[in-house]
Amino acid sequence: VRVEGDKSFIIIIVHSFNINGDIYSAKMKIHKKRWNIRASEMSKNTLNPIRAIVDGMKLSPNPDKAMIALSIGDPTVFGNLPTDEKVLQAMKDAMDSHKYNGYAPSVGYQKSREAVANFYCSPEAPLEADDVILTSGCSQAIELAISVLCNPGNNILVPCPGFSLYKTLAVSLGIEIKHYNLLPEKSWEIDLQNLESLIDEKTACLVVNNPSNPCGSVYSKEHLQDILAVASRHCIPILADEIYGDMVFPEHTFYSMAPLTNDVPILSCGGLAKRWLVPGWRMGWILIHDRNQAFGQEIREGLVKLSQRILGACTIVQGALEAILNSTPQEFYQDTIGFLKSNSEICFSALSSIPGLNPVRPSGAMYLMVGIEMENFPEFENDVDFTEHLVTEQSVFCLPATAFEYPNYFRIVVTVPEDMMVEACSRIREFCQLHYRPCNQESNDLDQ
Amino acid sequence: VRVEGDKSFIIIIVHSFNINGDIYSAKMKIHKKRWNIRASEMSKNTLNPIRAIVDGMKLSPNPDKAMIALSIGDPTVFGNLPTDEKVLQAMKDAMDSHKYNGYAPSVGYQKSREAVANFYCSPEAPLEADDVILTSGCSQAIELAISVLCNPGNNILVPCPGFSLYKTLAVSLGIEIKHYNLLPEKSWEIDLQNLESLIDEKTACLVVNNPSNPCGSVYSKEHLQDILAVASRHCIPILADEIYGDMVFPEHTFYSMAPLTNDVPILSCGGLAKRWLVPGWRMGWILIHDRNQAFGQEIREGLVKLSQRILGACTIVQGALEAILNSTPQEFYQDTIGFLKSNSEICFSALSSIPGLNPVRPSGAMYLMVGIEMENFPEFENDVDFTEHLVTEQSVFCLPATAFEYPNYFRIVVTVPEDMMVEACSRIREFCQLHYRPCNQESNDLDQ
Repeated sequence: VRVEGDKSFIIIIVHSFNINGDIYSAKMKIHKKRWNIRASEMSKNTLNPIRAIVDGMKLSPNPDKAMIALSIGDPTVFGNLPTDEKVLQAMKDAMDSHKYNGYAPSVGYQKSREAVANFYCSPEAPLEADDVILTSGCSQAIELAISVLCNPGNNILVPCPGFSLYKTLAVSLGIEIKHYNLLPEKSWEIDLQNLESLIDEKTACLVVNNPSNPCGSVYSKEHLQDILAVASRHCIPILADEIYGDMVFPEHTFYSMAPLTNDVPILSCGGLAKRWLVPGWRMGWILIHDRNQAFGQEIREGLVKLSQRILGACTIVQGALEAILNSTPQEFYQDTIGFLKSNSEICFSALSSIPGLNPVRPSGAMYLMVGIEMENFPEFENDVDFTEHLVTEQSVFCLPATAFEYPNYFRIVVTVPEDMMVEACSRIREFCQLHYRPCNQESNDLDQ
Repeated sequence: VRVEGDKSFIIIIVHSFNINGDIYSAKMKIHKKRWNIRASEMSKNTLNPIRAIVDGMKLSPNPDKAMIALSIGDPTVFGNLPTDEKVLQAMKDAMDSHKYNGYAPSVGYQKSREAVANFYCSPEAPLEADDVILTSGCSQAIELAISVLCNPGNNILVPCPGFSLYKTLAVSLGIEIKHYNLLPEKSWEIDLQNLESLIDEKTACLVVNNPSNPCGSVYSKEHLQDILAVASRHCIPILADEIYGDMVFPEHTFYSMAPLTNDVPILSCGGLAKRWLVPGWRMGWILIHDRNQAFGQEIREGLVKLSQRILGACTIVQGALEAILNSTPQEFYQDTIGFLKSNSEICFSALSSIPGLNPVRPSGAMYLMVGIEMENFPEFENDVDFTEHLVTEQSVFCLPATAFEYPNYFRIVVTVPEDMMVEACSRIREFCQLHYRPCNQESNDLDQ
């Protein structure tokens, strides 16, 4: 018996037998296959940095304190931010119409695409139904956008700190990631010099996430124009992740990128998830902005083709989309933003006064980044260690920003109820006070 | 001015200028980038054979006859096959609970996975929640299954005639397709010798679609066991596309593949689309059957990882899933099947008596394949030509089976209302009577 390779082995059977008095002997080879099923390279290359880090953490809350998770980027978990009644009514109407149970076109119903086009149309950046592709959540919008623009071996430019999905999707497709720096001291504006230095012949797309997860930053018109100038100079199309579009605090203004340029082609990705507070419904879209004809028919056709692989969003949500966009009252949006701003302020001012922490004031979205002066918390190795102990001692969980490739920060989600936010901040204060050991520059040697 | 490569061109500007009386001349090179955005290889390789063929057809119905489309594999289009009230109620209850608006785990809610596991569990092939991955429709289930089992360069074995999505997905991922033959004379059973002859070292998966689109065939237990024996002999895992599972006519029995084997690992793909008549809702699943531990943890983890790329099904449908599976009355399923069988019989007997057509009697699903004796319709070149003229003259559209890589047949969808089916069959008869020119074998030479 001999084993051959990995997949099969050979059994050699020696038989002797007698025919009419003569002895014959024969060897039979039997190839016996073995099961040897391996997961594909693509599945092995589909990495989720948040899961990788969180799964590796020892998260044992203090049994004497109720757990407060400031880590979950889902505004629905605490029940304090329900979607609007009109949104639910639109869904029920769609259901009762019995019109939305069958297959929709892979890019979505024409009427629903038209509704999205009308909702996001502007004189500077007009949109028609054909410029809209409906997708299964903003994640699929981003997947299709990356898939149509990039080949294996290309690279895309993504923000650091930034949402991890860009990397997850790109790497799984054999596309390289280059991180450009955001500047906390400039409210997380892009380091444009750094950005421009990363561009090479293989750069297929620039990802801009505004407003930002995890930063809660909102870019000024001027900054967006500066970013567009870089893209224009190097002829790099933009994937604008604008899922938090319009979710900005009252004193700020959200500028969508497309109206600010005449030449840079943009795939703007969005959806119902955040502004309408229904992330589970998986209703996303791509808005194709291409007034310069740089995408041309090729990219449009590519998106249509890719949309046929698994089809898009649930038809009931598609059927409700027009009513959702057109009937949700302004107060709903304002109330959400009012709450997010108030909670952000509570959190920002509480943490600002804690020695050793440096929160960066957000202007929108649902997040807040907090710098940790690691040198002043000598007990902890890094942000992962710091946030792990914060759970153990205070039962407060914040996502270490290593998950966004940005060590020594942590991210706070500001969608939790106000009392929990207040309580969490006071526990973070207690934790920091206990562990803060300022390393006075002058007495440094004496302390050692 | 010189053009350099495809991406940029160089403008050479020659300046002459005068400094302190001396003439200087200088050449300035300006690299001016040009927009040159190309759709990715993947998007170009995402081919939809049905669209390619239908879009190429000249479909101008006879203005004197109302159009009857027997081409659309969507049971909801004519309104005669509504889903059950219990299914709609389950959705409304899910909505009213306000519990299903947030993100679900990427593989689906635990409770919903449990409901699917319980629904499809059998003593021979037990299932637990962990064996279920919820997906955005059966298409995503098939996509994840192919993606986790195959690398570029591998091949998968798919039925001919067969559903085109297997090819669309595989080719877009750089995976080769090998078609194995189905035998119309044996009610579309697999030609097992042909199947076995196609297997090589690069074969990563065998796709079995039972009941079948486009054939409407339902395999016997014995035939499924024979297929499993081939897979077992060569250690090839099976992707069982069982989206039409249980949709078989009363005198037939549907056997799921998994309970028939102890050693062959199976990813069984299904969903709500067909049996519950809501294809637009995009609720699908993969059932992982691996009692022999041939997939092991690797394939399971691979599926979980891949599910994190775009997340899965709409949470409202997930929230309703348990109630849908458990409360839909038996009569609903029976009524659907009764209608499909009755319509199939009407169609089959009508077409059986038309000279020149050879329908193959279906046993389930919603389809019927009809062979065309092309030699007896000398006016038409092929099935595409034949069905094109059927539209022009009779306003009846059937999908030419070239779309399933099976020329000289066409597919009929039997979900249309009965009166339309009767009318369509009589128009097909009229069409065939007009164009049928039997080529008598003996007088062949005289006819020329």
